Amino acid sequence: MSLLVVGSVAFDAVETPFGKRDRMLGGSASHFSISASFFTNVRVVAVVGGDFGAAEREVFSRHHIDTSDLEVIPDGETFQWHGRYEYDLNVAHTLDTRLNVFAGFQPKLSDASKKSRLVFLGNIQPDLQRAVRAQVPGAELVALDTMNLWIDTTRDSLQKTIEVVDLVIINDAEARQLSAEPNLTKAARKILSWGPGTLIVKRGEYGAAMFTRDGYFAIPAYPLEAVFDPTGAGDTFAGGLMGYLASHEKLDEAALRRAMIFGSVMASFNVEEFGTERVQRLTHEEINQRFSDFKRFTHFEEIPFEQKVSSSKSQISS
Amino acid sequence: MSLLVVGSVAFDAVETPFGKRDRMLGGSASHFSISASFFTNVRVVAVVGGDFGAAEREVFSRHHIDTSDLEVIPDGETFQWHGRYEYDLNVAHTLDTRLNVFAGFQPKLSDASKKSRLVFLGNIQPDLQRAVRAQVPGAELVALDTMNLWIDTTRDSLQKTIEVVDLVIINDAEARQLSAEPNLTKAARKILSWGPGTLIVKRGEYGAAMFTRDGYFAIPAYPLEAVFDPTGAGDTFAGGLMGYLASHEKLDEAALRRAMIFGSVMASFNVEEFGTERVQRLTHEEINQRFSDFKRFTHFEEIPFEQKVSSSKSQISS
Repeated sequence: MSLLVVGSVAFDAVETPFGKRDRMLGGSASHFSISASFFTNVRVVAVVGGDFGAAEREVFSRHHIDTSDLEVIPDGETFQWHGRYEYDLNVAHTLDTRLNVFAGFQPKLSDASKKSRLVFLGNIQPDLQRAVRAQVPGAELVALDTMNLWIDTTRDSLQKTIEVVDLVIINDAEARQLSAEPNLTKAARKILSWGPGTLIVKRGEYGAAMFTRDGYFAIPAYPLEAVFDPTGAGDTFAGGLMGYLASHEKLDEAALRRAMIFGSVMASFNVEEFGTERVQRLTHEEINQRFSDFKRFTHFEEIPFEQKVSSSKSQISS
Repeated sequence: MSLLVVGSVAFDAVETPFGKRDRMLGGSASHFSISASFFTNVRVVAVVGGDFGAAEREVFSRHHIDTSDLEVIPDGETFQWHGRYEYDLNVAHTLDTRLNVFAGFQPKLSDASKKSRLVFLGNIQPDLQRAVRAQVPGAELVALDTMNLWIDTTRDSLQKTIEVVDLVIINDAEARQLSAEPNLTKAARKILSWGPGTLIVKRGEYGAAMFTRDGYFAIPAYPLEAVFDPTGAGDTFAGGLMGYLASHEKLDEAALRRAMIFGSVMASFNVEEFGTERVQRLTHEEINQRFSDFKRFTHFEEIPFEQKVSSSKSQISS
């Protein structure tokens, strides 16, 4: 049941119309691993600077996240991101990005990490993702996230990386840009033709959709009256999804469907407070409650329409 | 099982990147009633000019649509709409609108129509909608559609009309504009506070959501590789939904949920060809096939996550 994530660990400064935080634990690997930790044990491959302290380590250890492969560069500084969201939280502005030690990140996997059964290649440069992929030849399922920056600047390398993974987890704008297809169903077919067996498309407030060679599954988002801070929602979704899968022996479509629900549940909690604050103090009861809500929100009885032969006559004469 | 629709009957000229039609049967009442006719008998209250001919009448009669209350003004011309869609079919341009006889439309209901069990107030001026609503005091369910024009120009009258209907069927931009709430869940709560028991929000390619006082239900859209002409999709959705409900004795939430699926099925066919062309030649087998597809696309097993107490130890030592 081992799950590995390669990505960023960062300090985030976030401003929203509802408040701000100057420095909180962020980055794709942090959001992913804390979310996944509710379902399985996770190993993190990332890099931090000397400013990464006891408080941050304590968050990982409290969630039983294995940081043996968390590289520390003592005289460097950890990746810092500073962003601001507008009242419409879909509109985000990056105010400052300091890659710091992350600029030279060369993922190093221990022997134990190389034996991971499931691997999530967080949103990093596609060459690095592919280098990691090559080190986990025995992995049962390798998933990848990416972003518009890599589609713009390293498209060929990105496509090569997609060719060697099993699952792509991206948002709908990225799926359209990556495939140059405005229609999402066509976009999915094109991306799947490159190799992966499964594409999961995140659609924010509209939920998520899964495409396989001959299957389709879609879910709405959990309905929330207040979204506070969307930072990390995508990685939290992926963490819940991959974490749930890692807790399963059989990675079939039924498990993938439930994994998408658990991913959505985790993301729905993530956006309710700053950074990882809400997710950190979650309970399994709360998680299962929202999973059960999803069933309630989407269930309908499969009763086909039966034409009443007599209705036409009786109706017109009424 | 009587269903009444009040709305427009029009001649549409439509241009898309895939082709054009100069003059085809359109308007909210046409799209609605043809879609609903697959489930129940429908009466249409609308107005047309002397140019409304045998070919158009034949479409209605072939679908057993009762046109007794279709007013004809022999020396007037039927409402004409001319629109053009861009390659992104979400971008529509109205090139010409000639209201003609529709400008002076005063819906007149026969005694038979006044006894309708279900009523759909199509997208017309809200004062007229309310005048019709007052003539069907015994109706079991009255639904309403509207548009940004009426929210902009006749907001107070529209709100008064919403107060006296049971079901509002609008799209998400309209729900946000109407309520002045960017968050859809809050928007829904506000609109429901005015009176209606149910709000159904159409989200185009993202599906539809239903809000009640204490319930929520959401479905994805049917995945289509090619959308050809979106004209009338909303009315076709409402027609399938209301038509299916009209075929039912009990209008409970379970029926409403299935009705939303049938509405989505009908809309998915509508957009595959120009105007009502695809819907007109549908079969019940095709409709039930896509209904069944919806179950396949949304079903998951409700198995809560169970924490494995031993996993933590065995994991870290692996």
